[in-house]
Amino acid sequence: MKIAFIGLGNMGAPMARNLIKAGHHLHVCDLNKTVLAELAALGASIRETPKHAAQGRELVITMLPAAVHVRSVYLEEDGVLEGIAAGVPAVDCSTIDPQTIREISAIAAKKGVVVSDAPVSGGTAGAQAGTLTFMAGGTPEHFAVLKPVLEQMGRNIVHCGDVGTGQIAKICNNMLLAISMIGISESMALGNSLGIDPQVLAGIINTSTGRCWSSEFYNPWPGIVETAPASRGYTGGFGAELMLKDLGLATEAAKSAHQPVILGALAQQLYQAMSLRGDGNKDFSAIVEGYRRKE
Amino acid sequence: MKIAFIGLGNMGAPMARNLIKAGHHLHVCDLNKTVLAELAALGASIRETPKHAAQGRELVITMLPAAVHVRSVYLEEDGVLEGIAAGVPAVDCSTIDPQTIREISAIAAKKGVVVSDAPVSGGTAGAQAGTLTFMAGGTPEHFAVLKPVLEQMGRNIVHCGDVGTGQIAKICNNMLLAISMIGISESMALGNSLGIDPQVLAGIINTSTGRCWSSEFYNPWPGIVETAPASRGYTGGFGAELMLKDLGLATEAAKSAHQPVILGALAQQLYQAMSLRGDGNKDFSAIVEGYRRKE
Amino acid sequence: MKIAFIGLGNMGAPMARNLIKAGHHLHVCDLNKTVLAELAALGASIRETPKHAAQGRELVITMLPAAVHVRSVYLEEDGVLEGIAAGVPAVDCSTIDPQTIREISAIAAKKGVVVSDAPVSGGTAGAQAGTLTFMAGGTPEHFAVLKPVLEQMGRNIVHCGDVGTGQIAKICNNMLLAISMIGISESMALGNSLGIDPQVLAGIINTSTGRCWSSEFYNPWPGIVETAPASRGYTGGFGAELMLKDLGLATEAAKSAHQPVILGALAQQLYQAMSLRGDGNKDFSAIVEGYRRKE
Amino acid sequence: MKIAFIGLGNMGAPMARNLIKAGHHLHVCDLNKTVLAELAALGASIRETPKHAAQGRELVITMLPAAVHVRSVYLEEDGVLEGIAAGVPAVDCSTIDPQTIREISAIAAKKGVVVSDAPVSGGTAGAQAGTLTFMAGGTPEHFAVLKPVLEQMGRNIVHCGDVGTGQIAKICNNMLLAISMIGISESMALGNSLGIDPQVLAGIINTSTGRCWSSEFYNPWPGIVETAPASRGYTGGFGAELMLKDLGLATEAAKSAHQPVILGALAQQLYQAMSLRGDGNKDFSAIVEGYRRKE
Repeated sequence: MKIAFIGLGNMGAPMARNLIKAGHHLHVCDLNKTVLAELAALGASIRETPKHAAQGRELVITMLPAAVHVRSVYLEEDGVLEGIAAGVPAVDCSTIDPQTIREISAIAAKKGVVVSDAPVSGGTAGAQAGTLTFMAGGTPEHFAVLKPVLEQMGRNIVHCGDVGTGQIAKICNNMLLAISMIGISESMALGNSLGIDPQVLAGIINTSTGRCWSSEFYNPWPGIVETAPASRGYTGGFGAELMLKDLGLATEAAKSAHQPVILGALAQQLYQAMSLRGDGNKDFSAIVEGYRRKE
Repeated sequence: MKIAFIGLGNMGAPMARNLIKAGHHLHVCDLNKTVLAELAALGASIRETPKHAAQGRELVITMLPAAVHVRSVYLEEDGVLEGIAAGVPAVDCSTIDPQTIREISAIAAKKGVVVSDAPVSGGTAGAQAGTLTFMAGGTPEHFAVLKPVLEQMGRNIVHCGDVGTGQIAKICNNMLLAISMIGISESMALGNSLGIDPQVLAGIINTSTGRCWSSEFYNPWPGIVETAPASRGYTGGFGAELMLKDLGLATEAAKSAHQPVILGALAQQLYQAMSLRGDGNKDFSAIVEGYRRKE
Repeated sequence: MKIAFIGLGNMGAPMARNLIKAGHHLHVCDLNKTVLAELAALGASIRETPKHAAQGRELVITMLPAAVHVRSVYLEEDGVLEGIAAGVPAVDCSTIDPQTIREISAIAAKKGVVVSDAPVSGGTAGAQAGTLTFMAGGTPEHFAVLKPVLEQMGRNIVHCGDVGTGQIAKICNNMLLAISMIGISESMALGNSLGIDPQVLAGIINTSTGRCWSSEFYNPWPGIVETAPASRGYTGGFGAELMLKDLGLATEAAKSAHQPVILGALAQQLYQAMSLRGDGNKDFSAIVEGYRRKE
Repeated sequence: MKIAFIGLGNMGAPMARNLIKAGHHLHVCDLNKTVLAELAALGASIRETPKHAAQGRELVITMLPAAVHVRSVYLEEDGVLEGIAAGVPAVDCSTIDPQTIREISAIAAKKGVVVSDAPVSGGTAGAQAGTLTFMAGGTPEHFAVLKPVLEQMGRNIVHCGDVGTGQIAKICNNMLLAISMIGISESMALGNSLGIDPQVLAGIINTSTGRCWSSEFYNPWPGIVETAPASRGYTGGFGAELMLKDLGLATEAAKSAHQPVILGALAQQLYQAMSLRGDGNKDFSAIVEGYRRKE
C-alpha cells in the first residue's frame, strides 16, 4: 500500500520501519532529518509537509506528541487535509483528548475524508517488536480497512466504537492503571511497615480480591516481579511523565464531561508531586518511593 | 477433636456447623440463645462463658465483631485464658487490628498458651459453603496444627508469617480492593460520560493494564458481569459498611505505623460519605452510584 | 471617554451602565439584542462587531464568559484587533486562564496595542453597586490609565504585576476560598456530629487559628451568619458552578506550570460531584450539605 | 488554693510554675525527677502517685501526652479517683479524644467527682507567658469554679458546652487550621509558579475572600510575615508532629461519629507524608516545602 507516515519520534519511527518491512511504500514527514534519512535508506520517500506526504497516498498515519501537533498537521496550511484525496482513510495513533480527534474528524468529513483515532499502548519496546495494542475508534467499515495495516505494527487491534472511543478507552484504562499502581504501592508499603514479608503479601494479594495487573505483573516493590522495572531501579517501562500526560488528558476529559473522578484527580496530583521531586523520568511504579522511609 | 467455638454470628454459626459436620465435638458460647439451641440440636454443648467453653478442649476458635469483644473474650473475667489448658492452641478468626491480637498473644504466651490470628474472606456464602479463605498468622508449628481444622471451614488456607500477619494481609488486601473498586467505578463512569459503550470499555480494560479483580469479576457497572451484585441492584455481596470497617482498621494501623496511605484514607472517606447518604447496606460496588447522574 | 464595551451579560451589562452613568460614551456589542436596546436607551451606541465597536475609541473593555470567547473577540475576523487604533489600551475583565491573555497581549503588542487583564470579584451585586474588586495585570503605565475608569465600576482596584497576574491572583485566591469553604464545612459538620453547639463552635473558630473569611462572613452552617446564603437556603451569593469554573482554571493552570495542588484538585472534584448531584445552582457554601445526614 | 498538678512536661511545667507564682500551693506528680525538684524548689510538694497528689486537694489539674496516660492517671490503681475527695473538681488540660474524657467523667461522677476537659492552644511560649487559650467543657457551675484558676495560666478562657466539647472545639479548629495551611501553601506555590510576586499575592489574598489566619499571621511562604516560622527556617511555632497528632484525633473522632471529613483526612495523610520525609520536627507551615521545587 502507498502510505503517508507523519511523526517519526520514539514511537513513530519503529512503527514506520515495521510497515516498510511489511512491504508498504511510505511517504515520511518529520522535523528530525536524521530519522528521515534512516527511513529513506530503507526505501521511504521524504516529503516536506503533511500535505505533500498525503498526496497520492492510499492511507495516512499520524503519530504525534500532543493535540496541538495533531491539529496543526491535519488542519493548518500545508496540512494533511490539503493533500489527501477524497475517500482516502487517515488514522491518528497519537494519544490526545477525544474531543480534538472528533473535531478534526468532523472537519475532514466535510471534505469526504475519514479520520479516526487509534492510540496505542505497549511503549517503544512494543513499537519495535510490532506488538502494540491499538485502540481504534471509527466506523466498522473504516476499521476493516485499517485493521490489516495496524496488525503489521501491533498484536492486539481492538475496535472501541465511534471516532474518539479509542482515546476514551485509553485514558479510562490508564487512569485506572495509575490508581491501581498507587493502591498496590500503598498496600505494599503499609504491609511492610506493619511487619509482613512483602513477598508473602504480594502472593496473597495476587490470589485474592486485591489482585490487579500492577500487583501481578508490574509490582512496584523491588524483588517481587523479576521482570518489572521495580527490580531494576525503576528504569525502562512506562515513564512517570507519560503517565502524568495521560492523567492530564483523563482529568481534562472528565472536566469537559462534568464527570467527577476523585481518585483519578488525586492520582494526577501525586504524579505531579513525584515529577516535582525530580523523579519524572523513572518508571511510573516508582511512585512507591514516596511511601517509603529513605534508608 | 474437642473444640470450643465462641462467637456464633452470621459468620461463626455456619463455620461451627461445618466443624460439627466434620465430626468434631463443640463447646459453643454466644449471647444469642436461638443460635445456641440450633447448634445444640446438632450435637454441640452449650457453655455459659468463654472460660467454661475453653475448659477441657483441644482447640479454641473465636469469631467476634470487633477488637473490644476479642479482648474481652480472651482477657477479662471468665475469659478464655482462665479456662484454657497450657499448650492448647487458640485461633481468633475475627477481623481486628494487628496490634490487639499481638497483645493478646503476648499475654497468653505467659500462661503457655498460643493464640494466633486467622481472619477470613469469602463472606457468609463462603462460611456456609466451607469455601472461606483463611489468612493465618503464627508460628509454622502452630499453623500446622490449625490447618487441617481450618480446611474443614475453608478452601484456601494461607500462612502469612508471625502472629498478626493474618490481619495485616487482610487489611492490606481489602484496602487495595476498595481503591480498585473506586478506580474502576470512576473509569467506567468516565467512559460512559464520554460516550464509549460500557461493555466494550470493560472488555478492553480486562485485557489491558487496568485489569483488576473488581473490573473482571465484580464490575460495578450493571450488566457487565452477570453474577456481580451490580447486576442485581447491589444486593448480596460484601456490604459497604463492612468495607468501611476494614478501611477503618487499615487507616488506623497505618496511623500507628506512621505510614501514609493517601488513596486508602480517601477511599475510607468516600465509603463514609456513601454510608452517610444511607447506602451503607448496599454492596460495596454501589460506590459507583455516586459517580452517576440520577435518571 | 470614548469606550468600547464588549460582552453585556450578567456582569458586563451593569458594569457598562455604571460607566454610562459616570458620563462616558459607549460603543456596546453583544449577541443579546434586548440588553443592547436597554443600553442604547441610556445613550450607548450599538455596534455589530468587536471591530466596529473598537473603531474610534479611546479604551476597549471586554467581559466574556470564557477563554474561547475572549480569543475570538480579540483575534478572529472582525475582532477588536482589526478595529482598535495603535496606542489605544484594552482591558479584558473576563475570568480566564493567564496563558490566553498573555498570548493575546503578545499578539496585540505587535500591532502597538496594549491588552491587559483585570478580572473581578464581587458578583452581580458588586457589578450593580459599582463595588467590584479588580485584579489588574499589565505595566504600571497602563494600570495608571485604567485605574480611574475601573474605579467607576469598583471599589478596590489592585495592581498585581505584569499582564496575566490579575488572572493568577484571582484563581489563586478562589482556589484557597474553595478549600477554606470545604474545610469550614467539614469542621462544622464534625463538631455538630460530635455534639458541640454550632454557634459556639463558630465563635471559637472565629477567635482562633482556624478563622477564615468563609467561617467569619460566609459560614456554610445555617443560622451562624445572618447575611450569608446559608441562612437563606443557599440562594444568591456565588454559585457552585462559578466556583467549579474557577477551580477548573486553577487546576488547568497548575497543570501547565507542573505545579501540584492536591487539595485544590480535590476541591474541584468535590464541586464537580456537587454539580452532578444537581446542586450546581446553589451558593457554593452548600457544599456543606454533602456532609450532613438528610433529615 | 490547694491544687494537685499531674503531668509536668513542656506544657505542664510552665503552667504549674504560673500557678505557684499566683500563690497556690501545689502537689506535683510526674516521672521526671529533675522537673519535680525544680518545682519543689519553688515551694511545691512532690507526691509519688496521682492518688497521693489528689489527696486533700481542692482542685486537680492534669496535663498529659495522650488518652492512654489520662485514662491511667485517673482510673488505674493509685489513680486520681482513689485519692480525690467527693465534690472536688478536676480538669484535664491534655489534648485527647472527646470520648475518653466523657468516659472518665462518667466514671468519676459515680464517685461524686466532676472531671472535665480544658485543652489548650498557644504552645510552650503561651504556657510560659501565661497567655494560653483554654477550651473548656463541663457544666456552667464547674466552669465558674475553674475559670479564675485557668485565667492564671491563660488569657482566653472559653466555655464550649458539656464535658468533651473542649476537645471537640480544639480538634475542629485545628483540623480547619491544617486544611487552611495546606490551602494557602498550594495557593502561594501556584501563584509563584505562574509568575506573580508572592508578596503581592499574599497582600491580595489578605484583603480578599481567601483570607485566613494562616495567610495573614502565619504565611508559609518565607519573607511574607516577618514573625512567622517560615521567615526563620520553619523553626519554633507548632511542630508538624503535633499537628499530625491533632489530625489523628480529628479523623478518629470523625470515624466514631460516622462523619466524613474528606479534606481533613487528606490533610492528615499529607502531614504523615511530611513526617515520613523526616520533616516532622519543623513547624507545620513547612508543609509548603513539598510544593516547591528544590533549588
